Amino acid sequence: MKQLVKKSALTFSLLGAVLSASVAAQEPIQPIEPATNINQAEAELGKKLYFDPRLSKSGFISCNSCHNLSMGGTDNLTTSIGHNWQQGPINSPTVLNSSLNFVQFWDGRAKDLKAQAGGPIANPKEMAYSHELAIEMLGSIPGYVKEFKATFGNEAINIDQVTQAIAEFEKTLVTPNSRFDLWLKGNQSAITAQEKSGYQLFKASGCVACHNGPAVGGSMFQKMGLVKKYETSNPAQGRFDVTGNEADRHSFKVPTLRNVELTYPYFHDGQAKTLAQAVDIMGRVQLGREFNKQEISDLVAFLKTLTGEQPKFALPILPASTERTPLPEPFEVSAAE
Amino acid sequence: MKQLVKKSALTFSLLGAVLSASVAAQEPIQPIEPATNINQAEAELGKKLYFDPRLSKSGFISCNSCHNLSMGGTDNLTTSIGHNWQQGPINSPTVLNSSLNFVQFWDGRAKDLKAQAGGPIANPKEMAYSHELAIEMLGSIPGYVKEFKATFGNEAINIDQVTQAIAEFEKTLVTPNSRFDLWLKGNQSAITAQEKSGYQLFKASGCVACHNGPAVGGSMFQKMGLVKKYETSNPAQGRFDVTGNEADRHSFKVPTLRNVELTYPYFHDGQAKTLAQAVDIMGRVQLGREFNKQEISDLVAFLKTLTGEQPKFALPILPASTERTPLPEPFEVSAAE
Repeated sequence: MKQLVKKSALTFSLLGAVLSASVAAQEPIQPIEPATNINQAEAELGKKLYFDPRLSKSGFISCNSCHNLSMGGTDNLTTSIGHNWQQGPINSPTVLNSSLNFVQFWDGRAKDLKAQAGGPIANPKEMAYSHELAIEMLGSIPGYVKEFKATFGNEAINIDQVTQAIAEFEKTLVTPNSRFDLWLKGNQSAITAQEKSGYQLFKASGCVACHNGPAVGGSMFQKMGLVKKYETSNPAQGRFDVTGNEADRHSFKVPTLRNVELTYPYFHDGQAKTLAQAVDIMGRVQLGREFNKQEISDLVAFLKTLTGEQPKFALPILPASTERTPLPEPFEVSAAE
Repeated sequence: MKQLVKKSALTFSLLGAVLSASVAAQEPIQPIEPATNINQAEAELGKKLYFDPRLSKSGFISCNSCHNLSMGGTDNLTTSIGHNWQQGPINSPTVLNSSLNFVQFWDGRAKDLKAQAGGPIANPKEMAYSHELAIEMLGSIPGYVKEFKATFGNEAINIDQVTQAIAEFEKTLVTPNSRFDLWLKGNQSAITAQEKSGYQLFKASGCVACHNGPAVGGSMFQKMGLVKKYETSNPAQGRFDVTGNEADRHSFKVPTLRNVELTYPYFHDGQAKTLAQAVDIMGRVQLGREFNKQEISDLVAFLKTLTGEQPKFALPILPASTERTPLPEPFEVSAAE
C-alpha cells in the first residue's frame, strides 16, 4: 500500500512536471540554455583578447573595462569612460546573453557579435586603437602568434580572427538557471507569489510585447517614447543614425532584461538609476499608464528573478609583450620629451 | 640483479636530491613557497574588493586596474593612469609576491600590505575616493554587509577590515614553481646551461647583494645610481621623501625580480623598456661595469627563469549596488546639468 502511494505520488509529480513544461512552452519568455557548439580554442583565445588592454592605444582599456564580467557585463556607469577619460555617448549594454540579440549596439549597426567586436577597438572615443596596430601588437607576441596559429591554422593574424575569437568567447557568456527559468521549467516554488504577480502584470500590461523570448528583449527595435515623449539630454537618435529614416528616430534595440538587477543604470542614456524608476518611466512613455507603488514593487520583484548564473572562469593570464611590441601611448607626448 | 641496479639507481638519485637541496640551501636566493595560514574568508572577500571599481570615485578604477593579475600584477605602463586620466608619478610595482617585501611602496612609506591597501583608494591622483565614502558604499550593499559580518563578526564595516581583507587576498598572490625554483630544489635540468651561466654572473658581479632572498629583492632600500648618477626626468626622491635624510635621497626599495619577464617596463620611473636595457643600466649605475652582449644575454636568460606559476582563481562576481549606494562620479558635473 505504502509502495502504491509512493508510485501515485511519483506519477502525479511527473504529470505535474509535464503539465508545467507544456505551460512554460506557451509562455512568451523562454529559458536561457547553456551555450553549445562553442569552439573551445577560439573561446579561450577570445577570453584573453577580451581582457587584454593592449588592444587599446593607452594599454589601459580592455573589453572588460566597460563590459565588466564581475558586474553583470556592464560598467554600471551612466555612460562609459573612454580613451583619455572621454565621456561616452551612450550607456554600455551588457555583454551577457548578447549572442541572443538580433543585432548589436543600441542602434543595431552591427549585425552580430563578430561585427561588433571590432568597433570599440578602433573607436577614437573608446579604445582609440586601430585594427592595423592591434594586429601588429598581437603579431609581436609569441604567445599570441602560437595560439592564433593553433586555433586558425594560418600564419598571419588578421582582424577577422581577432573578432571571431572575441565573439566566440562572448557566446559562452549566457546566464542559465535564473529562478524564473527554474519556474518556467516546472519548479513551482522557484519564485514567490509576489514575483508571479509581477510576471502576470508584466504580461497583462504589455511589457512582454517587446521584452520576450529567451533574452526577454533583444529581438526588435522600438521607439523610446512610444506613447509619450521621452525627455533626455542625450542626443542619440538610435536607429535613425543608421538608416536616416525619420520613422527610426529615437528607435533603439530593445535591451535584454536578463540580469537587469545587475545592469543598472538603465536605458540608452543611463538616466534611470533604479529598477523602480525604470519600470515607472517605461509604464508612462511606452505603455501610457502609471503603475502604482504595489505594481512597481511586483514588477521589480519579477525582474529580479531574471538574474541567472554568472559566467565562471579563471581570470586569463596574458602572454608577455616583447621588445617588438608597440608601446602603449596613454598620454600625449609633449614636445619637451 | 636487475632489482639491485634499480635500487642503486634510486639510492643515487635520492642522494643527488639531498645534495642538491643542501646546495640550494646555501644559495642567496630561496624558493618561493605556496601561501600558508591564509584566512580564506578574508581572502575571498579581499578578492572581491581588489576587483571592485566602486572603491574609486569614478566607479572605473580598481586595485586590479594598475596591479593587473592578468599581466604579472602590473599595468605594464611607464607610470599609471589615475582618476580623470591623471598621469601617476611612479611605476606601479607588481603585487605578485609583495607579501615578501620588507616594506611597501617604492619609498617604503607603508609598513605592510594592510597599511598599503588604504593608500590608493584615498589618493586623489589614483582612485580619488575616501575611506569614509568607501565604507558608506560597502555598507549600502547587502552582499558585502553579510560577507563582512560573516568574516569579521561585528556589525559595522570599517576601513581596517577592508584593508585587512585586501591584504589577506594579496598574501595569496605568490608564484611558486618557477623553473629556477625547481632547479634550486634539485631538478638539474630545470634550467639551461646559459641560464646557469647567467645566474653565476648574477652572483659573481654583485647583483645578488641587493636582489636576494625568496623574492630576489624587496628586503632593503638602495640608492638608484650607487656608482654612477642615474639620469631621469622623474622627480621622485624615494626614501628621502619619507625621512628627509639627505642620505636617503634617490634611495628606493629594491624591487623583486620574481616574474620580471612580465613586469616591464622597469625601475621606479619605468624608463627601461626591456630586460636587456634594465640589466645594462643596472651594471653601469649600480655596479660600475659594462656587461657585454653575451653577459646581458645570459643575465636576461637567467631572469626569465624567475617566472613562476601565476595565481589562478575564478574572476569574482561582485554584489550589486542598491538605491542607497552612492553613485560613482566619473565626470565633473557641469553647471548646466
